[in-house]
Amino acid sequence: MSIVYLNGEFIPKGEASISVDDRGFLLSDGVYEVTPFYDGVAFRLDHHLARLDRSLRELGILFGTEGLAEVHHHLVAENGLENEIRSLVYLQITRGVAPRTHYFPPEPVPATVYAYAKPWERPPEDVWSQGFTAITVPDERWLRVDIKTISLLANALAFQAARDAGADDALLVRGEVAIEGAHQNFFAVFDGMLVTHPESNLILPGITRDAVLGLAGDCGIPVEQRPIRVEELADADELFFTGTTGEVRPCVQVDGESIGTGRPGDVTVALSQAFLNLVQKTTKEGMAALG
Amino acid sequence: MSIVYLNGEFIPKGEASISVDDRGFLLSDGVYEVTPFYDGVAFRLDHHLARLDRSLRELGILFGTEGLAEVHHHLVAENGLENEIRSLVYLQITRGVAPRTHYFPPEPVPATVYAYAKPWERPPEDVWSQGFTAITVPDERWLRVDIKTISLLANALAFQAARDAGADDALLVRGEVAIEGAHQNFFAVFDGMLVTHPESNLILPGITRDAVLGLAGDCGIPVEQRPIRVEELADADELFFTGTTGEVRPCVQVDGESIGTGRPGDVTVALSQAFLNLVQKTTKEGMAALG
Repeated sequence: MSIVYLNGEFIPKGEASISVDDRGFLLSDGVYEVTPFYDGVAFRLDHHLARLDRSLRELGILFGTEGLAEVHHHLVAENGLENEIRSLVYLQITRGVAPRTHYFPPEPVPATVYAYAKPWERPPEDVWSQGFTAITVPDERWLRVDIKTISLLANALAFQAARDAGADDALLVRGEVAIEGAHQNFFAVFDGMLVTHPESNLILPGITRDAVLGLAGDCGIPVEQRPIRVEELADADELFFTGTTGEVRPCVQVDGESIGTGRPGDVTVALSQAFLNLVQKTTKEGMAALG
Repeated sequence: MSIVYLNGEFIPKGEASISVDDRGFLLSDGVYEVTPFYDGVAFRLDHHLARLDRSLRELGILFGTEGLAEVHHHLVAENGLENEIRSLVYLQITRGVAPRTHYFPPEPVPATVYAYAKPWERPPEDVWSQGFTAITVPDERWLRVDIKTISLLANALAFQAARDAGADDALLVRGEVAIEGAHQNFFAVFDGMLVTHPESNLILPGITRDAVLGLAGDCGIPVEQRPIRVEELADADELFFTGTTGEVRPCVQVDGESIGTGRPGDVTVALSQAFLNLVQKTTKEGMAALG
């Protein structure tokens, strides 16, 4: 049985349980992060912890993130994931246990901290090389999706709608704009220009997104951060999604219409490979640092 | 210790706990109801269960509500609340326990059903007769607030913002429109006309709201269901909120500006009293039916 972390203890998952008064359970009052590990080495854990810290501050949850890097590493080790090609640590922090009220507990209570580690698999290369499909789904999420909260019902419903339609992903649309995926950021390529929605209250500031923007700069690919109207999608040469467990994932079809050639395009393939190279470099440096 | 209901059993609250894999805890994937009891008799439990049934269907959670009326009555009895002037039953249903994914469990799992009962108190009459205050807060909630889900983080943050500002309630504003409270519906009176936002994806179809609309008809008060622009509030003669534990609650000040005379107005007082009369009539009939 896997070992999880709950409120300061590493325990078998079967012994972990949550109070019925937890504000995460009653009010979705909490935040989370998913950090990828490659060969047991974290990729950009510092970025994830910085974003977590911001999420906590935005919600006024009083919790210091200092000891959490160690929790991540310990979970990976305890669960024998040091040699897994890909694994992840999921970490969730809620405002804690208190009688149900919309307002915060008048006397602050300890935050609930829960984390687990597990392996994950990238889809096989032939699936990757064919590309993935998406359907557009109305973006019904709240107006602070820049905070990475557990209030994810709208995301779950959108993703399920995509699966019900036989698609791999949902492309969320607000008004005239294709915003992002149900749990991934979204990029388009128009005439060699890489385009993605600017950071705002309407998108999650993705860590893979940020890495890809850096790699585009390194590769000499021009970048424009601006909203992409749905009607522009028909003119896009390439589309892709980015995310922790999505990495850089080509999208070759939206609502049944092929994008560009209907195959992953050159810019997408170049950035997808550059991302894997960056991961490999980071992992090697991480392993060297560990001795 | 209070007795709660969890997945088919009535157990001491101290023995009730939730799996760390519950989709309510991880993804806010669930719905709820709060049903009021007066002298141990439920007020409009059938309405609450019908709304719950709709919420479940909207989210595709497979759970039949047939046995839930009995759960409510049993909880009130087990907790000795038959003679409480006011008590409530909180009931929450989540999609159940499954490894965390945005999509629903491919093989449906049993829903998690949790409920508790507790007494609640109406604020003292002198507070009531003075009226309550509110501040306007941006409505950042998702676009399906007509479904009564546990994805309540935006509501909690708005209500806390009101408390931090020293106000009793938040009045949520989307665009130019004063929509509703953080957990109550909202009414205004202009020149004798009762006005409230029409049912749509932007408001919760409140059961107290519905009762008040019926009472207004009985009292010969004309009603218009239309959006109320924020700039109209200065011209309102009266404002009030409605909700299960708010009943019909006069609001005499918004953002520090007095509304009308700065005291609860005639229409509000009449409807507040009519609501209590309706509750009393329902309770007496309910007690007679119980023998």
